[in-house]
Amino acid sequence: MPTQFDPPSGTRDFLAAELETRERAFAIIHAVYSGYGFEPLQTPAFERLDVLLGKYGDEGDKLVFKILRRGEHEASGEADLALRYDLTVPLARVAAAYGSQLPSPYKRYAIGSVWRADRPGKGRYREFVQCDLDTLGSTSLMADAEVLCAQHDVLGELGLRQFTLQLNSRLVLSGLLEVFGVPADLGPGVLATLDKLDKLAPADVRAELAGRGLAADRAGELVEVLAAPDSADRVRDALKPNKEGAAGLEQVDQLLSLVAGQVPDGRIVFTPRMVRGLSYYTGPIWEATAPDVPGSIAGGGRYDRLIADLGGPDLPGTGGSLGIERILQLMPGGQAGRRRRLDVAVTVMSDELAGRSFALAGAARAAGLRAGMYLGSSGKLGRQLKWASDQGARWCLIYGAAEDAAGTVTVRDMDSKAQSAVPVAGLTSHLAGLAAARPAKRP
Amino acid sequence: MPTQFDPPSGTRDFLAAELETRERAFAIIHAVYSGYGFEPLQTPAFERLDVLLGKYGDEGDKLVFKILRRGEHEASGEADLALRYDLTVPLARVAAAYGSQLPSPYKRYAIGSVWRADRPGKGRYREFVQCDLDTLGSTSLMADAEVLCAQHDVLGELGLRQFTLQLNSRLVLSGLLEVFGVPADLGPGVLATLDKLDKLAPADVRAELAGRGLAADRAGELVEVLAAPDSADRVRDALKPNKEGAAGLEQVDQLLSLVAGQVPDGRIVFTPRMVRGLSYYTGPIWEATAPDVPGSIAGGGRYDRLIADLGGPDLPGTGGSLGIERILQLMPGGQAGRRRRLDVAVTVMSDELAGRSFALAGAARAAGLRAGMYLGSSGKLGRQLKWASDQGARWCLIYGAAEDAAGTVTVRDMDSKAQSAVPVAGLTSHLAGLAAARPAKRP
Repeated sequence: MPTQFDPPSGTRDFLAAELETRERAFAIIHAVYSGYGFEPLQTPAFERLDVLLGKYGDEGDKLVFKILRRGEHEASGEADLALRYDLTVPLARVAAAYGSQLPSPYKRYAIGSVWRADRPGKGRYREFVQCDLDTLGSTSLMADAEVLCAQHDVLGELGLRQFTLQLNSRLVLSGLLEVFGVPADLGPGVLATLDKLDKLAPADVRAELAGRGLAADRAGELVEVLAAPDSADRVRDALKPNKEGAAGLEQVDQLLSLVAGQVPDGRIVFTPRMVRGLSYYTGPIWEATAPDVPGSIAGGGRYDRLIADLGGPDLPGTGGSLGIERILQLMPGGQAGRRRRLDVAVTVMSDELAGRSFALAGAARAAGLRAGMYLGSSGKLGRQLKWASDQGARWCLIYGAAEDAAGTVTVRDMDSKAQSAVPVAGLTSHLAGLAAARPAKRP
Repeated sequence: MPTQFDPPSGTRDFLAAELETRERAFAIIHAVYSGYGFEPLQTPAFERLDVLLGKYGDEGDKLVFKILRRGEHEASGEADLALRYDLTVPLARVAAAYGSQLPSPYKRYAIGSVWRADRPGKGRYREFVQCDLDTLGSTSLMADAEVLCAQHDVLGELGLRQFTLQLNSRLVLSGLLEVFGVPADLGPGVLATLDKLDKLAPADVRAELAGRGLAADRAGELVEVLAAPDSADRVRDALKPNKEGAAGLEQVDQLLSLVAGQVPDGRIVFTPRMVRGLSYYTGPIWEATAPDVPGSIAGGGRYDRLIADLGGPDLPGTGGSLGIERILQLMPGGQAGRRRRLDVAVTVMSDELAGRSFALAGAARAAGLRAGMYLGSSGKLGRQLKWASDQGARWCLIYGAAEDAAGTVTVRDMDSKAQSAVPVAGLTSHLAGLAAARPAKRP
């Protein structure tokens, strides 16, 4: 492909087959999320620059695509707008803008592109889709349970069979830091390091903790408890005397109990060492992982101060996001199989008969079938049948001089090659019958 | 609404009710266009600046949203990317990039946002959706007829009842200019003025033509023929001796004949004064208009040189675009009616019963119904029934201590207020029965 016709670095063109796979996935997500009573929201692709900047840290701000001012202001080289970096800051703005017009609590989902000027790489794009669902305005753990179950259901409906949900609470983590005597100022750094226990050897994690200034014995104890196969039980014991930690355990247990009827046994596991990178979580947190996939494919948690911190109203919130670009790679049979562009391909045997052929395609569409015409210039049947086959058509309608004289159309089964003559007037109902009889197949 | 929380000037937030109306319309367009064998295409929101600039004329270039370079280059104040201005330049790039990987002819549709830094006004946005369908690589008039019929079908499926299709050909217009002795260099300007015959009085059009340098007698003759009630017949007579004009009439007649079976009598009319603004058309052109709606709601035509002019391969093309933002305003009942957020609202009468209630919502979803929990803190039934009613729920599931003791759930019909006790184990099938019995209703 010549470079000058490539899409911009880090972006993709989606041709039909891949786009249809993606759209099917998005339709499933729509259906599951609305099944839980979440409603859709769509915000503009760009926001005012001051709405976005300062919300993602210095590193994040550098990755924002900024839009140059226009007209006489263009020469200033300044930006006044920027492409959205995520779907959460726009949610905070919407919560502030529409206030009481929104239902309370406000349960919304959003599926949309976001843009980040990251260095493009394998599976890392500058334009990619986020799928978020969030409930603002409820402190109930049932709100967390709804998000968690809806994400679980989506992964299942998308055909993923092997995934695990790791559940924890930020309160469990703060309790642990207290119990193991981690100084408050070291807390965030220690958590960031502990989050690597699923990737690094315990010794490496201990070394990193020491590098952060944590006393060696405390680092050793923390890692020993969290890396142990029975870490859940050991953490439960350790946190019994700690008020915050015990409250975190209570959150975890209530959530496990709420979702028990809907998430199969063993699929959701209390995982004390799971931290989730983002610092804004305040309660339960969860992550879905799949075998052989680095990182998580979905995650979420409670963030009771985030919306206010982002400039929105002071509303508690809980929500989750799907790593949909990664999930699309895992979906079974996503890219497989030949695309069926048409159900019915219609030949055009001569200019004089073109109008009749065009009407036959209309009759096929009236039967609910996708139908298209041969638009080339060859009058040869063989050539046109080759075209019909290239379209993946199930049937080909042949209408030449003989058919015109007889008032019939030849319906050719492209799989069996069998042909039958059908009166033109009965074509729609004949095709509807054939369509009803065939096994359901995705396009 | 406080200004600082508004979306950027000329853009819109779409909350659930409006978004769902829009998504339903887009789904209909998807379905109709694929019914004709067009396949979807999605390109990135932005293109490299050099791909976009110089394609829309100086006025168009000024309306392009440009994206500032990033990192160390940001300080230069220069742009390297720009938001797409339409869906046609990306199509030309895709045709160049993927060449033989695309089917031939390439029939594609695209539904996506475009961005123009126009002055925002009533019904004029800076972010709006375009819906294009195009066939590249066929000179057959059937390709034009497919586009025309697909657009016609979409307007009908979207519920528009009163609209007219005006059909013409650029060859008819060039023939007219020849026959009426319009100097070649005045041609484009004369056509632009003639295009105003549906808005301006004939005398004003004559004056504008004279202002463009056309001799008064020629201007008078042209306007007389084109503004006459029987202009179609008079143009047919006038063009008989003119080769190009006769070829244009032949195109018009063939197209009328091709679509005759699918577009009702009188809905499509040969309209010689219809020019369509864009200069790139080379053959048939058409426009859909609706009563009391200024301008057109859809339009299209053949453009056999455009794709090459835009930097793509030298492919003939024909295509059309919907004025979808305008059409959405015309759609019957689009915004009306109370939104049904939930089919089933589930009460939570106490913390102890929350888990059981949560499972009941799962049972309702298993019956294919949208179900959500009461997430507030009130244990009062009246308050929760009010919430259920606010959600537009069809049924409310009540599960309190009495139900828990009896192993039943109280199913309340929110319309009739009738309540019945249903065994918990039979809830899914009971609700599935109720759902099957109710009249189909859109959410």
